[in-house]
Amino acid sequence: MQAVDFNSDMGEGFGPWTIGDGVDNELMGYISSANIATGFHAGDPGTMRRTVERAKALGVAVGAHPGFRDLVGFGRRHINASAQELVDDMLYQLGALREIARAQGVRLQHIKPHGALYMHLARDEEAARLLVENLRVIEPELLLYCMPGSVICRIAQELGQPVIREFYADREYDLSGSIVFTRNVRGYEPQAVAERVLRACRQGVVRTVEGQDLAIEFDSICLHSDTPGALDLVEATRKALDAAGIVVRAPR
Amino acid sequence: MQAVDFNSDMGEGFGPWTIGDGVDNELMGYISSANIATGFHAGDPGTMRRTVERAKALGVAVGAHPGFRDLVGFGRRHINASAQELVDDMLYQLGALREIARAQGVRLQHIKPHGALYMHLARDEEAARLLVENLRVIEPELLLYCMPGSVICRIAQELGQPVIREFYADREYDLSGSIVFTRNVRGYEPQAVAERVLRACRQGVVRTVEGQDLAIEFDSICLHSDTPGALDLVEATRKALDAAGIVVRAPR
Amino acid sequence: MQAVDFNSDMGEGFGPWTIGDGVDNELMGYISSANIATGFHAGDPGTMRRTVERAKALGVAVGAHPGFRDLVGFGRRHINASAQELVDDMLYQLGALREIARAQGVRLQHIKPHGALYMHLARDEEAARLLVENLRVIEPELLLYCMPGSVICRIAQELGQPVIREFYADREYDLSGSIVFTRNVRGYEPQAVAERVLRACRQGVVRTVEGQDLAIEFDSICLHSDTPGALDLVEATRKALDAAGIVVRAPR
Amino acid sequence: MQAVDFNSDMGEGFGPWTIGDGVDNELMGYISSANIATGFHAGDPGTMRRTVERAKALGVAVGAHPGFRDLVGFGRRHINASAQELVDDMLYQLGALREIARAQGVRLQHIKPHGALYMHLARDEEAARLLVENLRVIEPELLLYCMPGSVICRIAQELGQPVIREFYADREYDLSGSIVFTRNVRGYEPQAVAERVLRACRQGVVRTVEGQDLAIEFDSICLHSDTPGALDLVEATRKALDAAGIVVRAPR
Repeated sequence: MQAVDFNSDMGEGFGPWTIGDGVDNELMGYISSANIATGFHAGDPGTMRRTVERAKALGVAVGAHPGFRDLVGFGRRHINASAQELVDDMLYQLGALREIARAQGVRLQHIKPHGALYMHLARDEEAARLLVENLRVIEPELLLYCMPGSVICRIAQELGQPVIREFYADREYDLSGSIVFTRNVRGYEPQAVAERVLRACRQGVVRTVEGQDLAIEFDSICLHSDTPGALDLVEATRKALDAAGIVVRAPR
Repeated sequence: MQAVDFNSDMGEGFGPWTIGDGVDNELMGYISSANIATGFHAGDPGTMRRTVERAKALGVAVGAHPGFRDLVGFGRRHINASAQELVDDMLYQLGALREIARAQGVRLQHIKPHGALYMHLARDEEAARLLVENLRVIEPELLLYCMPGSVICRIAQELGQPVIREFYADREYDLSGSIVFTRNVRGYEPQAVAERVLRACRQGVVRTVEGQDLAIEFDSICLHSDTPGALDLVEATRKALDAAGIVVRAPR
Repeated sequence: MQAVDFNSDMGEGFGPWTIGDGVDNELMGYISSANIATGFHAGDPGTMRRTVERAKALGVAVGAHPGFRDLVGFGRRHINASAQELVDDMLYQLGALREIARAQGVRLQHIKPHGALYMHLARDEEAARLLVENLRVIEPELLLYCMPGSVICRIAQELGQPVIREFYADREYDLSGSIVFTRNVRGYEPQAVAERVLRACRQGVVRTVEGQDLAIEFDSICLHSDTPGALDLVEATRKALDAAGIVVRAPR
Repeated sequence: MQAVDFNSDMGEGFGPWTIGDGVDNELMGYISSANIATGFHAGDPGTMRRTVERAKALGVAVGAHPGFRDLVGFGRRHINASAQELVDDMLYQLGALREIARAQGVRLQHIKPHGALYMHLARDEEAARLLVENLRVIEPELLLYCMPGSVICRIAQELGQPVIREFYADREYDLSGSIVFTRNVRGYEPQAVAERVLRACRQGVVRTVEGQDLAIEFDSICLHSDTPGALDLVEATRKALDAAGIVVRAPR
């Protein structure tokens, strides 16, 4: 692997609150694609604008990061909504960010659902298909970030929507290739994360919770900004990539 | 006057609730432009989609109807927010509807702020200017519905954003040319409203609360869907316009 | 059966919106216990106060009707929240209504969870137990409205919290004794509902969706105020009860 | 002055977010009364419960800290609501905390409105009177924290509701005796704040923004937990009070 995208969730504060260590501004210096929260699980219009401005200043590509309508649960609790409700909610959020970005002269690169919604679309045929069908109409070139092998990834490939497959630097894998979803994210050791990423980039494998290696393919590394110590993790990972001669750049 | 636009607020329910008599579907048959609530004072993504679909089916032009972030107050209570906060909120809402409309192949015709936000922009130089400056960047052709003689109307005309000046069929005027804003809307007699509109169209005057006539200029008639008996008012008005040979059509 | 309680959900508007036909004021004349929405799925502080005032004026007992935090989904969508989160949310809502009632000199009679939360507590041991344990501490005499045979009913009886078992006049039963939960409530014929209630009161049976009779025991009849035509249903039911000499009165 | 109360706002996070430096747990060790956010400007049921538990463990008295319904603005933006709406909202929030505290066996000591609502009640006769009249009915002994000389302070004294007059350690005074309200709070130097508090306690004066001393009377020192560096400020102030032999204790 000669080049790879490096994405992180950005703008996940709300009103007076910032997430985790409040280090979005610093984190933005190490990544190539920013998933900007769009108001339902986190993010408010002012935070969205400032996050777009920061991404623009640093040449970071931006995408929409829509979630379940659940601020207090930070979009990490599944809500038993219909496929149509979820797609309506995602289009609403996507457009909200698109307009704010347009006012800054910035074009959206991608969409990446958040938390429990991301996991739902990885499994639910009806919601995944309805979202992709809408993306085909709205913007056939919008990149869809997703889990390799997931239902939504397969449907997007079937219908022609371009996908970016992710490797999760700070989530555990099981042998099914799925990440182990959790509402409470634990801390990680920076050097261990950096080496895990390098191994994924160079050898295409990751060690699972079962203790065996799993072969993985991906186009982008994901590291969450609310993981404890995120700045150290992102910095260590970026330095390891640079040192290994792997160029960090957005897909477009 | 040979032709005039006829606009009404649409989609002002939320979740399980509909506004007023729940007659949006019928009202839509009599108007030419629909101001669709965009989620902050009313409206949710599903309601927005269904309202766009209905407007499209009937050939009614659609615009965004953003309000203060105040569901419980229905956007009728002023919030002491900064100009930047308000414009961020309006762009967010505008984009949300634009995306939902795009998925239906519908292009937005206009933007019209709601309730207390409409009144605020009619008076506040800073917020009005910041909004119009953003519209100049985002979409120089987007029509801005506003009160004739208001601050935002003047600024839009200065900066080149096209305006549609409104005549309010179901609001009282005072001699300053301003409408008398109220949180509690009273009922009206259909025939009286229809005649008031006709008089405005033909003679360019309206009777004020002070009892004197006021000269008015306008491009669109506004009648609120949550005014008690709205369907009768809209139907009577439309019939009077048709009978008088005044064509009801959207500006574009 | 010589006497029975008759309960209905009240105050399920929000801000400018009323539910169903907006007939709470009329409905209140026919029932003996009002379940008042407490702000998370419906209801706002002003609506809560006015609903308590109306109940007080008519001598109707009042209880809290807490729901999932989901206005747009009206509390009818399950949210994957922890037992602790749900109980925190329910105590918050219970106290909110209690204080508003106290300001009117009204004491709460009961608590009855709403919609998907009601169904969740009917099945989920952990959440049901945690709620009942808290009720034991807070107010050992507060009545808990629940489904006969449900998990929460059994736990409350075990721990000594008094229960009121419900018969659902406008919901379908299956042979398991559970009601068939739906997000979209259908209409009913008033006379059929009244007869179904009378049969339940006199013979202790209800016809299930499978077409067989099911034996039921209950202390209160529930009829939902947002069922289409609710006023006719409630009126017909009340008249049938009166004509049959069955006294409608609150448990306390 | 031999003893004084020391209060701070606590539990002003929401869902995944904590306020300021997230140091509530440490701050709680230095104060005698905690104003707990009640969900409208900040605070959620789980945070409320945990904050009550922490206060109980440390013997800190608790009170309700209701605000405008404005999470994104953190209750620092005035909303043009009616007196009745505001009082309904405050009772709702007061009761919510009271119930959560009751489940922990904790009794509320006081109520203190937040931010823009605090300032509104300091000036608005109608809202202040309606709140105090309701407190007289609900709980005639509940302490009302307020600004000395404010409208609400005067009305409470007239009607017999007990007041606790505050001195604001981290807000500027003007010669009218009012604090200079701001949405963006600046940082302070710990030693300067501690000396300012000591001077207020011993000499009963504070230096105003106009540069002159103002005589003040008060029963409680207020220091905000979201002021930058709050922990250092609170710690320095508490140490100075201890060293000066002024006992820090709750009014009850």
